Amino acid sequence: MVKTEYIVMNTEKRKCLVHITDNVRDFVRSSGIKEGMVLVSAMHITAGIIVNDYEAGLWSDIMEWLEKVAPEGDYAHHQTGEDNGDAHLKRIVVHHQVIVPITKGALDLGPWERIFYAEFDGRRSKRIILKAMGE
Amino acid sequence: MVKTEYIVMNTEKRKCLVHITDNVRDFVRSSGIKEGMVLVSAMHITAGIIVNDYEAGLWSDIMEWLEKVAPEGDYAHHQTGEDNGDAHLKRIVVHHQVIVPITKGALDLGPWERIFYAEFDGRRSKRIILKAMGE
Amino acid sequence: MVKTEYIVMNTEKRKCLVHITDNVRDFVRSSGIKEGMVLVSAMHITAGIIVNDYEAGLWSDIMEWLEKVAPEGDYAHHQTGEDNGDAHLKRIVVHHQVIVPITKGALDLGPWERIFYAEFDGRRSKRIILKAMGE
Repeated sequence: MVKTEYIVMNTEKRKCLVHITDNVRDFVRSSGIKEGMVLVSAMHITAGIIVNDYEAGLWSDIMEWLEKVAPEGDYAHHQTGEDNGDAHLKRIVVHHQVIVPITKGALDLGPWERIFYAEFDGRRSKRIILKAMGE
Repeated sequence: MVKTEYIVMNTEKRKCLVHITDNVRDFVRSSGIKEGMVLVSAMHITAGIIVNDYEAGLWSDIMEWLEKVAPEGDYAHHQTGEDNGDAHLKRIVVHHQVIVPITKGALDLGPWERIFYAEFDGRRSKRIILKAMGE
Repeated sequence: MVKTEYIVMNTEKRKCLVHITDNVRDFVRSSGIKEGMVLVSAMHITAGIIVNDYEAGLWSDIMEWLEKVAPEGDYAHHQTGEDNGDAHLKRIVVHHQVIVPITKGALDLGPWERIFYAEFDGRRSKRIILKAMGE
């Protein structure tokens, strides 16, 4: 059995994290899949998906740290008229997708694992694909 | 067909790599799945999974390099009483999961690909989920 | 249904990106799978897979930036006779694999998402595994 859903994101801030565990959980429940996996993948190339701690301090640490690892700056990509070169690199660092295992009809996450969408060039409509597969 | 197993890790060192290819291979053999994929995912948010070379020099290179990319330090997350902010960031760099393809009943790894668990805040009990899906 | 194919890469340059979306698309079409996922995974430990923008400026940005994050240098791994320690680390940063969702028989990529192979120690024969699973 394979089920698909798209979530539309449109963040007020250019860069931010958004908690989406509940969206993924609701989708998996409605899918009827009891055993399998769900892919959560950011379809736009300046956004990613992270599974980590849902804690405000850590969230600001992540965003500050990414500014050091993949800073804003003068990128060759900007010759196209864009100014978001750093956002493409930040997506590469955090990776753009995760697989969440489904066991007994529920997300099989560790005790502190939560799913977030990482937006690095927001303020416009973007999609996340959820694709669940299993029995 | 979907099969699940959990491996419990409890490392003596706070930070280290542990070779787990044999654990994943044994699980896949016992699963009876001949064609498919197995997800290997660290369920705790200060650990990750890497597929790379099982070579002592490289292992020390990886750990030293991660100390530069995501160093120990003063993180906002530490206001919760934790002192492992760097471990959360290291998990993001290496990613917390891999998918290993299963072909003819065996792990379909490249000639030098081996699977390791990357612990960044150990000395306590943590789980890895193995979830295999296929025919 | 599960289908497998291997792509052989042999790049002229030691480090480069190669566009492989068409290879993955052709494979998925020939697989007959209408709904599911395809794993695209670099089987050699000094190469990775990226899903991002197919734009020349960004491609040079990515390669320059990786040289900063995981530079060439003196690595313990080089005591084995190798000189590619940086290539192993670059593979970890970009991750070595992606899952592309398959919807209605096509790759379900975002508007700008394209798949590339990231070679960090080329000029010899290496493989990518494509493994599709679904209905």
